Amino acid sequence: CRLDLSQTDRYYESVYNPCEISRVYISNQCVSSATPTEEMNGAGNLMDFLDEPFPDVSTYEDFHTIDWLREKSRDTDRHRKITSKSKESIWELIKSLLDAWSGWVVMLLIGLLSGTLAGVIDLAVDWMTDLKEGVCLSAFWYSHEQCCWTSNETTFDDRDKCPQWQKWAELMTGHAEGAGAYVLNYFLYILWALLFSFLAVSLVRVFAPYACGSGIPEIKTILSGFIIRGYLGKWTLLIKTVTLVLAVSSGLSLGKEGPLVHVACCCGNLFCSLFSKYSKNEGKRREVLSAAAAAGVSVAFGAPIGGVLFSLEEVSYYFPLKTLWRSFFAALVAAFTLRSINPFGNSRLVLFYVEYHTPWYMAELVPFILLGVFGGLWGTLFIRANIAWCRRRKTTQLGKYPVLEVIAVTGITAVLAYPNPYTRRSTSELISELFNDCGALESSQLCDYINNPNMSRPVDDIPDRPAGPGVYNALWQLALALIFKIVITIFTFGMKIPSGLFIPSMMAYHHHDWIIFKNWCRPGADCVTPGLYAMVGAAACLGGVTRMTVSLVVIMFELTGGLEYIVPLMAAAVTSKWVADAFGKEGIYESHIQLNGYPYLDVRDEFTHRTLATDVMRPRRNDPPLAVLTQDTTTVEDVETLIKDTDYNGFPVVVSRESERLIGFVQRRDLTLAIKNARQKQDGVVSSSVVYFTEDAPQLPASNPQPLKLRRILNLSPFTVTDHTPMETVVDIFRKLGLRQCLVTRSGRLLGIITKKDVLRHMAQMMNQDPESIMFN
Amino acid sequence: CRLDLSQTDRYYESVYNPCEISRVYISNQCVSSATPTEEMNGAGNLMDFLDEPFPDVSTYEDFHTIDWLREKSRDTDRHRKITSKSKESIWELIKSLLDAWSGWVVMLLIGLLSGTLAGVIDLAVDWMTDLKEGVCLSAFWYSHEQCCWTSNETTFDDRDKCPQWQKWAELMTGHAEGAGAYVLNYFLYILWALLFSFLAVSLVRVFAPYACGSGIPEIKTILSGFIIRGYLGKWTLLIKTVTLVLAVSSGLSLGKEGPLVHVACCCGNLFCSLFSKYSKNEGKRREVLSAAAAAGVSVAFGAPIGGVLFSLEEVSYYFPLKTLWRSFFAALVAAFTLRSINPFGNSRLVLFYVEYHTPWYMAELVPFILLGVFGGLWGTLFIRANIAWCRRRKTTQLGKYPVLEVIAVTGITAVLAYPNPYTRRSTSELISELFNDCGALESSQLCDYINNPNMSRPVDDIPDRPAGPGVYNALWQLALALIFKIVITIFTFGMKIPSGLFIPSMMAYHHHDWIIFKNWCRPGADCVTPGLYAMVGAAACLGGVTRMTVSLVVIMFELTGGLEYIVPLMAAAVTSKWVADAFGKEGIYESHIQLNGYPYLDVRDEFTHRTLATDVMRPRRNDPPLAVLTQDTTTVEDVETLIKDTDYNGFPVVVSRESERLIGFVQRRDLTLAIKNARQKQDGVVSSSVVYFTEDAPQLPASNPQPLKLRRILNLSPFTVTDHTPMETVVDIFRKLGLRQCLVTRSGRLLGIITKKDVLRHMAQMMNQDPESIMFN
Repeated sequence: CRLDLSQTDRYYESVYNPCEISRVYISNQCVSSATPTEEMNGAGNLMDFLDEPFPDVSTYEDFHTIDWLREKSRDTDRHRKITSKSKESIWELIKSLLDAWSGWVVMLLIGLLSGTLAGVIDLAVDWMTDLKEGVCLSAFWYSHEQCCWTSNETTFDDRDKCPQWQKWAELMTGHAEGAGAYVLNYFLYILWALLFSFLAVSLVRVFAPYACGSGIPEIKTILSGFIIRGYLGKWTLLIKTVTLVLAVSSGLSLGKEGPLVHVACCCGNLFCSLFSKYSKNEGKRREVLSAAAAAGVSVAFGAPIGGVLFSLEEVSYYFPLKTLWRSFFAALVAAFTLRSINPFGNSRLVLFYVEYHTPWYMAELVPFILLGVFGGLWGTLFIRANIAWCRRRKTTQLGKYPVLEVIAVTGITAVLAYPNPYTRRSTSELISELFNDCGALESSQLCDYINNPNMSRPVDDIPDRPAGPGVYNALWQLALALIFKIVITIFTFGMKIPSGLFIPSMMAYHHHDWIIFKNWCRPGADCVTPGLYAMVGAAACLGGVTRMTVSLVVIMFELTGGLEYIVPLMAAAVTSKWVADAFGKEGIYESHIQLNGYPYLDVRDEFTHRTLATDVMRPRRNDPPLAVLTQDTTTVEDVETLIKDTDYNGFPVVVSRESERLIGFVQRRDLTLAIKNARQKQDGVVSSSVVYFTEDAPQLPASNPQPLKLRRILNLSPFTVTDHTPMETVVDIFRKLGLRQCLVTRSGRLLGIITKKDVLRHMAQMMNQDPESIMFN
Repeated sequence: CRLDLSQTDRYYESVYNPCEISRVYISNQCVSSATPTEEMNGAGNLMDFLDEPFPDVSTYEDFHTIDWLREKSRDTDRHRKITSKSKESIWELIKSLLDAWSGWVVMLLIGLLSGTLAGVIDLAVDWMTDLKEGVCLSAFWYSHEQCCWTSNETTFDDRDKCPQWQKWAELMTGHAEGAGAYVLNYFLYILWALLFSFLAVSLVRVFAPYACGSGIPEIKTILSGFIIRGYLGKWTLLIKTVTLVLAVSSGLSLGKEGPLVHVACCCGNLFCSLFSKYSKNEGKRREVLSAAAAAGVSVAFGAPIGGVLFSLEEVSYYFPLKTLWRSFFAALVAAFTLRSINPFGNSRLVLFYVEYHTPWYMAELVPFILLGVFGGLWGTLFIRANIAWCRRRKTTQLGKYPVLEVIAVTGITAVLAYPNPYTRRSTSELISELFNDCGALESSQLCDYINNPNMSRPVDDIPDRPAGPGVYNALWQLALALIFKIVITIFTFGMKIPSGLFIPSMMAYHHHDWIIFKNWCRPGADCVTPGLYAMVGAAACLGGVTRMTVSLVVIMFELTGGLEYIVPLMAAAVTSKWVADAFGKEGIYESHIQLNGYPYLDVRDEFTHRTLATDVMRPRRNDPPLAVLTQDTTTVEDVETLIKDTDYNGFPVVVSRESERLIGFVQRRDLTLAIKNARQKQDGVVSSSVVYFTEDAPQLPASNPQPLKLRRILNLSPFTVTDHTPMETVVDIFRKLGLRQCLVTRSGRLLGIITKKDVLRHMAQMMNQDPESIMFN
């Protein structure tokens, strides 16, 4: 039973062909017949040809599913080759060391680039948001804050009022105050917003249609093993970065957090192409992309650990421990790079750094849990309303005018946002103010700042001081802002421009908390921290919308630096998840995946039905029999006819049609290539030549033409299950091993085949959904 | 092709029998023939019998591997039954809701109990450690600190000197000072230490042999799907808690952190028995245990997030997202309970809370990375030396006198530790002092405290003040303490008493850092934070020993509250891991698993050899043929002979010996039970009766005795691979699906079988290790 290595060698080169049998529902690039570029002479060169990668970058078609097992096997094979070569010379040893370190190098590059991009985006958004209101006379590229910080003429206290910074009305007419100036500012504010959003939507439409939306549903789908060419391409990276700045600056109710994950993944994909280890292996590429997603969240919130957990909990599909370490490294480098750029001017990793000094009390858990309930309800409502609106957009005339839609929503947002000081400023600025604790830290700059535009005095200085009219005014404005943000976000998320959800989701909540807090705290003397309520409310809301828990809590405390408040945050996040889950298991990203019909096999969906493999496999009872090849009786012509008549991506090979005993699986693509080349290069191969997959040529009469040996393209270890296997096991196998297809046998006889899409369709059917919604819409 | 539900029903009851074919190397309970307690009459009752669980709690033997797929399938089945019943009545609905919430209830209970136990252990250790030196006169159950805190007569400054607290010499002779008192105190210190450790080792030996050691290697093995009865039992819980206090108090160089994980897992196992959902399903039980491990780390360090990550990165095998959420909940409840007990008296979750105000500089990354290198080297050295010592203990006479060994090591530790003030006090107290920043916080109590016994002045007040003789004295003592701790820990870890590694590992490092810092910082004026170096050093050392990264960094910053120092910690942890991995891939826990020969299939071991399933499967070339049953020609006598002659745990069933086409797999245990009961209860079943596994009885001459139908105990969906499947894929399948065995076929013919132990043996062989070391030693 000893191993014949020469045989194994040959075996390894031919095993695991990427095959998938299922009708292709998409129009583009469907079963392209690739043309080989190499010269081939006979069987010897066919080997070399099959050793080499196919002309395409990867061996998968666009919009197809990858085979994780095959990718892993290919990588091990590559690794083995390098290891055995490394013993030959010093140069090969160095090459093998470089290869081993390439993963860390890619992580370093991703961290550096995504950190830099995030810093640039932050600075640009700051500047352009302020540009809507005015301009810095000393240097037009300064934002309001930078303009006044660099000015020496102002005192520390009113650094937001300095002569260098002029509002547009003041600059144009010379009048800073009055109704005329207000109207002019208002008008120019709307105009700038419309210009920014028009630019954003046009750029997306013309250059990179994939740059729209938050990108997280698509990234989840890609990470689960689906190919969407160009989704993470260079153009998408460039356009998404530019339009993200434009979209956020235009004042639309969207955040940069989700899109930053997409940007980071594009960076990851870009650097993958530097190393053949990653560019030529879709499985390894996804490991890099998982880490890139962590880096994206890391820079979006300044939360490296939260980023790793987000990648693990929310977006990744295959997340081995090695990826965990690398993700952490990438996330740290990214956060560190961002800190070096220092766009927030506070030398900290965190976005909304707050320092609370008051502990929280057990009794406060009640409002925290109530906030959680509210967050869960809001999450459910938001998802339903947003999905309903997106479905309407898809199915009605509305979807045909994306530019008009964006312009309209921007216009409405700008018109309604300007009069309310809470909605006029940028969302992250507002959150930062709401998180801050006015009462406890009297010296806080932001606290003075927040009270100025609202004309409300800092009432929390002394807890039992009665609330002045300014507070009620602020409350009223916050309530209006809350309702406005809730409604407009439903319409904004899903439009054809880059849009994130995190910040708007957080938004809606603070306001609410703020109100609850005010009402609740007034009578008592021992006043609680309002910023904490804002934080907990934000966590509850985000939890309701995205259904994250651990990563959410970690992000929240990294975001604010409040390590002490894990318990309140956790209480709210878990409650929110429970409440929202009671109304529907799917978060916003899963809902959008379903809406778009991506073939995503969710790890969280539990399949509990009693069906068996025999109920799902093809062919069904009234279908024509399964298209199979026999090991040594099919002719070249038969194969060509089969390829022409069917659109399956692969064919099982059996001993004979009578015994139906399975010996392997052969991919359509390999078959087409092999026969085409044999006909061109190999003498004696004609239509009536017998194709054989056995070791030795079959015994044929001397008059027959030369047979064609195709064992090299045969996958000798196809995955099989018996027809009695329960579907829950089959689903588990597909999920955990990342299969594309699985053959079904009974007592060693081949009965049928189950593909990943068959599984997804069956799951949809069992949940009373339209099975044909799987794949593309 | 429609589904016949009645058939599926029956199918589901018989599918997935726990079977395992491999010789059993262990002596106890080997293939026990269980005796059924139920009455059975014919086939009808056989059904009922098979529905019911077996007389044992679970259906696995001790020291056997579980079948994850089967456990999952059983749970889904149970869930389905409850769901369908819940529609029948309100009562059933309530029961189903209770069932759905039982997971969270178990988590709550685990959190509460493990938090309480950790608090009690902390208080007891405090008291007993101080008892070695003296006693509180006002109340003997007070520790030194409590005694002086409650005393009103002392000022705040010297709260460690109060009249109520008397050293033994003072109490017995009336003299507090002098050589005689010193010798008496020294002698009593050693005596108490010996008494504690003797009690600990005796209790462990007499009541719960499983309570020894850190427990983490065994928990890793159990979580990977191995059964060790009693390892997490009530007795183990009780004895481990008591002996842990004794062992730590005796002054041995061990920590309570690892054993606390074991204690928490025992709590988890205890509460599992309250709910049949967990107690009767080994897979679900392991989900609870994973969460309990997180709770254990959470209370050990006051680091809930670190606990979850530790469970994920280090100990767990199967960690679905649901477990992630529940682990987090359990970890939080545990940490919160511990905070309520407040054993450290600082109202914080964290053990060594420090607040640094100085940022770190880029240039400091160089010493941090050097610390990482040092940590990696130390980790390698420690693992090698400790494993060599443990191997010697196993193989020589030494292993026969565990009590004597413990007494000897305690004696040596006590004798050497007392003269040095750094080693005399408890380890965690020392770490806390080393972490603290003396220079920056002049008001720090601990800083005064640390300087008193060393007679060194606080030299860091002003950075460029020259070091006094006290500092050099302290350095010298710290260096001695470092060497002493390193050496003694190697001999301590692995002794037959509860022993943790975390705190000793941390220990060794601070000292070193402290020294490095002193030497490095002296010339410069811009002095750095010594506590930070201690922290980074601790992380590097722990990283080298355990090979954790993300969880380590999170634990370290949760432990100290230093969110700002992620980058230095990470740099040290990653460097340390790289350096240590260069010398050997295994951490201390994996090394101990290997030393003990547990059947643990590590997720991190990459299998890269080119072997195929055919090289690993049994029977080998010269073995007797595979023991199989035929579907309708074997007689009862044949089956009984087969059972008697072999010790395999299951048998494949084929159509006929000629065709060798596989139809299913039957478990030895089921077969024995079914035949025994049929012989007793079913008329006409005699030795020459034919056993059949088909739907219909075979056509037999009328003279033949009544045949016996056994289709119900046949697993119709055994897992198969082809003989050409590469072993890396097979290893992957075993790992990801948690299989016990897998059948090997070629063109539909059964060739052989591969069990988990065959896989482990093959992996050991490929790594040039003794394959027979797998399983027990």
